[in-house]
Amino acid sequence: MALTLYSFWAATAPYRVRIGLALKGLSYEVVPVDLRAGDQHGEAYRARNPQGLAPALDTGAGDLLTQSLAILEWLEETHPTPPLLPADALGRARVRSMAALIACDIHPLNNLRVHQALQGLGVSRGDVTTWSARWVSDGFDALDSLVARYGEGFAYGATPTLADCLLVPQVYAAARYDLDMARWPALKAASDHAAAHPAFEAAHPRNQPGAPKP
Amino acid sequence: MALTLYSFWAATAPYRVRIGLALKGLSYEVVPVDLRAGDQHGEAYRARNPQGLAPALDTGAGDLLTQSLAILEWLEETHPTPPLLPADALGRARVRSMAALIACDIHPLNNLRVHQALQGLGVSRGDVTTWSARWVSDGFDALDSLVARYGEGFAYGATPTLADCLLVPQVYAAARYDLDMARWPALKAASDHAAAHPAFEAAHPRNQPGAPKP
Repeated sequence: MALTLYSFWAATAPYRVRIGLALKGLSYEVVPVDLRAGDQHGEAYRARNPQGLAPALDTGAGDLLTQSLAILEWLEETHPTPPLLPADALGRARVRSMAALIACDIHPLNNLRVHQALQGLGVSRGDVTTWSARWVSDGFDALDSLVARYGEGFAYGATPTLADCLLVPQVYAAARYDLDMARWPALKAASDHAAAHPAFEAAHPRNQPGAPKP
Repeated sequence: MALTLYSFWAATAPYRVRIGLALKGLSYEVVPVDLRAGDQHGEAYRARNPQGLAPALDTGAGDLLTQSLAILEWLEETHPTPPLLPADALGRARVRSMAALIACDIHPLNNLRVHQALQGLGVSRGDVTTWSARWVSDGFDALDSLVARYGEGFAYGATPTLADCLLVPQVYAAARYDLDMARWPALKAASDHAAAHPAFEAAHPRNQPGAPKP
């Protein structure tokens, strides 16, 4: 069955799912949803995905999956090779904890709709950037110590996991805030290592439909 | 092995894990971490949990697990009965999507540290409440349509799942914003139904150490 991903080239959450699809070696169609132009609020999209966010994955059987973490877990269960989670329950909890730290404690505070809401409250552009940098920094402080403890090339162990699927897009997004990544040496090394992997390269925003030409 | 939960009676994320533990019929020790008093920033706690957030679960074997979603998935894998996820991959994706909608798109925008940060930017108390109500309402709009589609008593199907572990605490937290829950009839019915279950009652904030006496 053909998979179809509703994706926006520049957004962090669809980028995670593109990495997972590429690591699993799965081909898929892309339907671009231009979040900056507001495509996600259109009736056609809302009818399929009531939350009006990207990504969403059409399984090819008429089912639309939403939420990047849930989609990645579905990919892991339906296409178990290569695995994106360790075999042992404790390792799986560690990887999921790293992924959740990014998905719950960093990313939600720094996306487009939140920036727009802050500006609507009269918060200056500079303060919005400081706000974003603070959540990224707090999260990266904790994540760096976890990667230092558990990483062996990748964020957890020696092969790519769900943690890398979330880490690389978050590092990409963080570049907007002009942070000194040298503060997080273990995290940066793991992110650089993963970014050089062909699956991560294929999923990169610059290689997506709609991205500006270099 | 004895489980120990680092928990704060009033906080949403430890409440999710308490529900999961109770549904699995597991006994555990509680170590209260008073988030309002700043216990989570103390050296002793940070040494164990670098992110300084609650909940954290000590497995009894010297391992400390963090992030409520990761802890709940670990509980599901190590204590599979009764299951908190459906047997089929599609159902599991639906439940995880509902859980992630709450964990990623509602809760992170409305917790204590975010409220404090907004006030630090000069946002008024009234605007902070409006901000919180907006994210809860947007999320509940989407979640209500999912519960209407998939719920059969509980949020997904006829038995408690991870979705209920996240829904009930989020409805509890939303009471602070004086929202009219009648706007979300399916969600409210599922939440009320779950709240009456003994495991949900045992996990309720009012039944935790440190909670104010009635």
